[in-house]
Amino acid sequence: MIKMILDVMGQDAPASEFIRGAVDAVREYGVDMTLVGDEDLINDVFIKEDLSMEKIDVMNAESFITMEDGAMSVVKEKSDSSMNRGLKLLASGGGDAFLSAGNSGALLAGATFIVRRIRGLRAAFGATLPFDFPTLLVDSGANTVVTPADLVSFAKMGRIYCSSMYHRPDPTVGLLNNGTEETKGTPLQKEAYELLKSADVNFIGNVEGFDLTSGKADVVVCDGFTGNIALKTAEAVGRYASKSLEEALGRSVLSKAAALPLRKKLRETARRFDPSEYGGAPLLGISKPVVKIHGSADARAVKNAIRSAIYYVSTGVIYEIARNSSTLVYKDGAPVGKEKK
Amino acid sequence: MIKMILDVMGQDAPASEFIRGAVDAVREYGVDMTLVGDEDLINDVFIKEDLSMEKIDVMNAESFITMEDGAMSVVKEKSDSSMNRGLKLLASGGGDAFLSAGNSGALLAGATFIVRRIRGLRAAFGATLPFDFPTLLVDSGANTVVTPADLVSFAKMGRIYCSSMYHRPDPTVGLLNNGTEETKGTPLQKEAYELLKSADVNFIGNVEGFDLTSGKADVVVCDGFTGNIALKTAEAVGRYASKSLEEALGRSVLSKAAALPLRKKLRETARRFDPSEYGGAPLLGISKPVVKIHGSADARAVKNAIRSAIYYVSTGVIYEIARNSSTLVYKDGAPVGKEKK
Repeated sequence: MIKMILDVMGQDAPASEFIRGAVDAVREYGVDMTLVGDEDLINDVFIKEDLSMEKIDVMNAESFITMEDGAMSVVKEKSDSSMNRGLKLLASGGGDAFLSAGNSGALLAGATFIVRRIRGLRAAFGATLPFDFPTLLVDSGANTVVTPADLVSFAKMGRIYCSSMYHRPDPTVGLLNNGTEETKGTPLQKEAYELLKSADVNFIGNVEGFDLTSGKADVVVCDGFTGNIALKTAEAVGRYASKSLEEALGRSVLSKAAALPLRKKLRETARRFDPSEYGGAPLLGISKPVVKIHGSADARAVKNAIRSAIYYVSTGVIYEIARNSSTLVYKDGAPVGKEKK
Repeated sequence: MIKMILDVMGQDAPASEFIRGAVDAVREYGVDMTLVGDEDLINDVFIKEDLSMEKIDVMNAESFITMEDGAMSVVKEKSDSSMNRGLKLLASGGGDAFLSAGNSGALLAGATFIVRRIRGLRAAFGATLPFDFPTLLVDSGANTVVTPADLVSFAKMGRIYCSSMYHRPDPTVGLLNNGTEETKGTPLQKEAYELLKSADVNFIGNVEGFDLTSGKADVVVCDGFTGNIALKTAEAVGRYASKSLEEALGRSVLSKAAALPLRKKLRETARRFDPSEYGGAPLLGISKPVVKIHGSADARAVKNAIRSAIYYVSTGVIYEIARNSSTLVYKDGAPVGKEKK
């Protein structure tokens, strides 16, 4: 039986959304669940909303990490936080995956110091952009500064994740750049391009911001600074578009009865560019499944994130990544160094 | 009388779209116009489409810059190109602004070497994101690598452009970053944050990808690599959303008569996130108006770019920028260096 550990504290949304999402996931997917957070608060939600506690444990935590806390607080001043407790439970084998929508920096630090990385790898977030084809963006926000070899390692981890999770036999990998020509970009992209050409991935060259919706590459690699900007811009524009079109529909002269089926269709369409639809972003490179849930997730998004985390656990993506992690980086056929020191 | 110089070669769209856009602009705004490109091709379009040549000159050019040409080709091997000819005409006083939708790198190089920069400034593209409030993104693609002082200079140029073009008395300036906290970003953003705090701009701190649609800052500064990714991502998602919703409407069970007014409304809404709606992106920092038209512009977008270029010329933004260009960069109240060497 797969057991999920869910941090219900420290995110933007109320804990009740997270608890409802967890209850729904337990019912629909039959997993076991440990909720970590303020026990009184959690029990109150169960009573108030008359939810079933079947297959759900609660682990009390005295504090939680806020969005303002420094990344290292999770292992230092706030070692009694829900994030720390949940990660320790995962590390000690008390669950199969840990999910949190809290402070990303703290989640990265906690996962790195408590759960540990796979030897030789740097951890990176892999967010899925849910357009016509799922596109995995790695790193979508963990590391603001990376080396060219890191980008190769992100490509390899992304390839394995994408292949297992989205059933692509040989996922294509693109390097996010400011143009498609080989000579584009900063020194980082130029050097990474050379390394990716001879790396063991299906590298299709540079891709642009345009290609995040086109499905041109299954996996798009970039530093976490650029990935963060691209992801948040995509979300903002998607949300803006949905909102504008809802408004246009609201102002239209159609009768309510005529507008209803159309509104439903538009909402379905809008959902296609809602990042919460594809669940959470895994911290690739960590030795056990740690998943970041979207900051403004509701119960449905939490349930979706749990569903994809179940799949992440059961497909054994992490074992596959670990098996591939000691590969050397080649340049012109010769090994030029370890993927990551 | 204001005279525009329009390069009609080397862009993705056919020259005929550009010529029609120019003819429409001449008729609507009463400007004079010089079209630069293959004279025979241009004349053919006028005859075939039965367009009026009133107030329009044609300047012949033997070649044009392709998207594959290197940036320096415009001043070296292809000094007979339409881009070179047009920029030389601008530099020599034969027109008030030059517009092109061709190769951006060549446009930057050509503008820098033929028209010249304002002393002490680095040229940067300023693209306007057309959401509820126009947001000016500087640099939207000219310089992949910049210094913290460059970002201050982009902020100052952006402030002046935004104030004149969009009638903001004291435009707010945000630094595009991967979080709002002061400590966020790479060393570039951290250092720029410090400089911007004491610079003569209305600095409101870091802004995120989310804020490109929110209107939180009137001017958003970043390096041209990040700006390029953000701009293209925003465009891609906007276009994807429009397309999806058109399709949803097409599949809906509404009768054609009932769908028509709604379709019109949705199209109007879609236009609100179409970057071509706000015309071209000026190359701020160049001593005369040089404007990049959107790569996939149609006649309407060309006309809009000409309209905003007329305004760019007549408001005297460039003189204002030049007057402000020798300002020193201050840190903790002390001048720590020239804005740009």
